[in-house]
Amino acid sequence: MRESEVISTFLRYLKRQGDLPLGDDAGAIKLRDRWLVATNDMLVGKTDVPGIMTPRQVGFKAVTMNLSDVAAMGARPIGFLFSLGITSDLDSDYIEGIAKGIGEALDFYKVPVLSADTNEADDLVIDGMAIGTTKRLLPRSGAKPGDLVCVTGDLGRALAGYLVWRDDLEVGGRVKDALYERFLEPKARVEEGVVLSAVASSAIDVSDGLAKELNILSERSGVKICVDAWKLPVREEVIRVSEILGLDVHKLALASGEEFEILFTLPEDLLEGLTFDCTVIGRVFEGNGVYLMDRGRAEKLPPLGWEHMVPRGSWY
Amino acid sequence: MRESEVISTFLRYLKRQGDLPLGDDAGAIKLRDRWLVATNDMLVGKTDVPGIMTPRQVGFKAVTMNLSDVAAMGARPIGFLFSLGITSDLDSDYIEGIAKGIGEALDFYKVPVLSADTNEADDLVIDGMAIGTTKRLLPRSGAKPGDLVCVTGDLGRALAGYLVWRDDLEVGGRVKDALYERFLEPKARVEEGVVLSAVASSAIDVSDGLAKELNILSERSGVKICVDAWKLPVREEVIRVSEILGLDVHKLALASGEEFEILFTLPEDLLEGLTFDCTVIGRVFEGNGVYLMDRGRAEKLPPLGWEHMVPRGSWY
Repeated sequence: MRESEVISTFLRYLKRQGDLPLGDDAGAIKLRDRWLVATNDMLVGKTDVPGIMTPRQVGFKAVTMNLSDVAAMGARPIGFLFSLGITSDLDSDYIEGIAKGIGEALDFYKVPVLSADTNEADDLVIDGMAIGTTKRLLPRSGAKPGDLVCVTGDLGRALAGYLVWRDDLEVGGRVKDALYERFLEPKARVEEGVVLSAVASSAIDVSDGLAKELNILSERSGVKICVDAWKLPVREEVIRVSEILGLDVHKLALASGEEFEILFTLPEDLLEGLTFDCTVIGRVFEGNGVYLMDRGRAEKLPPLGWEHMVPRGSWY
Repeated sequence: MRESEVISTFLRYLKRQGDLPLGDDAGAIKLRDRWLVATNDMLVGKTDVPGIMTPRQVGFKAVTMNLSDVAAMGARPIGFLFSLGITSDLDSDYIEGIAKGIGEALDFYKVPVLSADTNEADDLVIDGMAIGTTKRLLPRSGAKPGDLVCVTGDLGRALAGYLVWRDDLEVGGRVKDALYERFLEPKARVEEGVVLSAVASSAIDVSDGLAKELNILSERSGVKICVDAWKLPVREEVIRVSEILGLDVHKLALASGEEFEILFTLPEDLLEGLTFDCTVIGRVFEGNGVYLMDRGRAEKLPPLGWEHMVPRGSWY
């Protein structure tokens, strides 16, 4: 059974949903004048943890991936929970590393742990959950024609870092450090999410790759999105890797997942009010589909993400 | 590494906790005039799912065990989340059964699903999380000398049912049905928890067995608890199994876990106001420890639960 079939099977039986139906970065219910946002994301050792990752980084990432979903809803995280499945032969240093990573992340994000559960399992499993509150939600369905399309930070380092590790590329320590920072220790845009809750029309975090997230915003909002390839925020270290591998740097940036940047849309006149740096990469139009503009040519951008491109390397 | 060592390792690093520290049925943070309660509990196929259990029952139980923890805090559940880890060879009927069980439980308890995540894993894993709200929390630490000790419903059917299945006992269909109802399809005491939030001084759900829960209340509250063996609410079907196996029926009731009844304490004058049936099984005193009173003799009751007694059968 494919994942999409599993999901559609569950959706047939899960009729009782929150005030915001399933399908956003997180679920939400209305508590008087506020929204309570809740999300969960399971990290499985075999499929989600590259061998190079330290247990501390694994623990940190389990927190980051969940807080990122809360941030992308415009909510301030107020609590984290986790369930741990560990194999009986997992050594105590590894377990301590995970504990340290979770603890450091909670300090970094200033979020308390509310509940934890440990179990024996056949594979390492860290299932994290985060809750948050906000006065105004940022759904994936709110993009309006005329809005600007923006993204926080930079894109592509997670995938470039993965490729450097997988193919053992010679890139020098400084480049490698910059890429591995994002590949192994990504951070969630928690404060940006709080600011965006007041002004953005829609938002989603970049977990499966920008190309996929743009298509989700377009489809859920019922709009056309045009993105300028040359405006994508890409650092020189990512350009370096694209040159070594002979890849199109824009496609690398569009395919890179687990960046945990926030992709959002907002009315043009509200851009000035933002208190953090971001990059305007495109605009929302009436219509449908996502188009990548490159020197006057418009190419339809398929909803392909990290998982479709990296393992088989089919896109480059 | 033993589970207790894993937990103490984590506690060393998890300094940033909620307004109610870790160690109760659920965590809690204060949201203005209300408490937000959150809990999680992972169900692992290999260790938590007896072979006789249908996938629908597995899904239902994943919801029940989490809502029970919320109820034991005196909170009304307002949302459920889950992460599913499934093996690549799990058949679609089994997956559909789990989906059906979760959906039925959400309808039964009238609680919406807020978020769900599916992953491939080496073993079946259902990690559930529930959140709830209450004006007044029921911590494990609130039992006061003079309080009555009470329990909802009846005890022992989960363990008796397990033994009937494990030892293939001949008990007749009516007895088996009554036992299997609790063993395979236990229900959480959601409405009782809401009522208790106004009057109880402490509460805990019976997940590891009454003997263990009594010891937790005694230790966390710093009190002595005396329980009358002959007042334990035991149904005739449990007595029947105890006779067949030559077991002390009281010990069977005390060891039986995953009953999901609520054990609570409250001032004697508030008993009259309860709107549901319960059984007064003992009283709280100054001091420490838990004592089982049986025809004038007092026996110290060790904090042993289901997992210590059933697999090895060391208690009978």
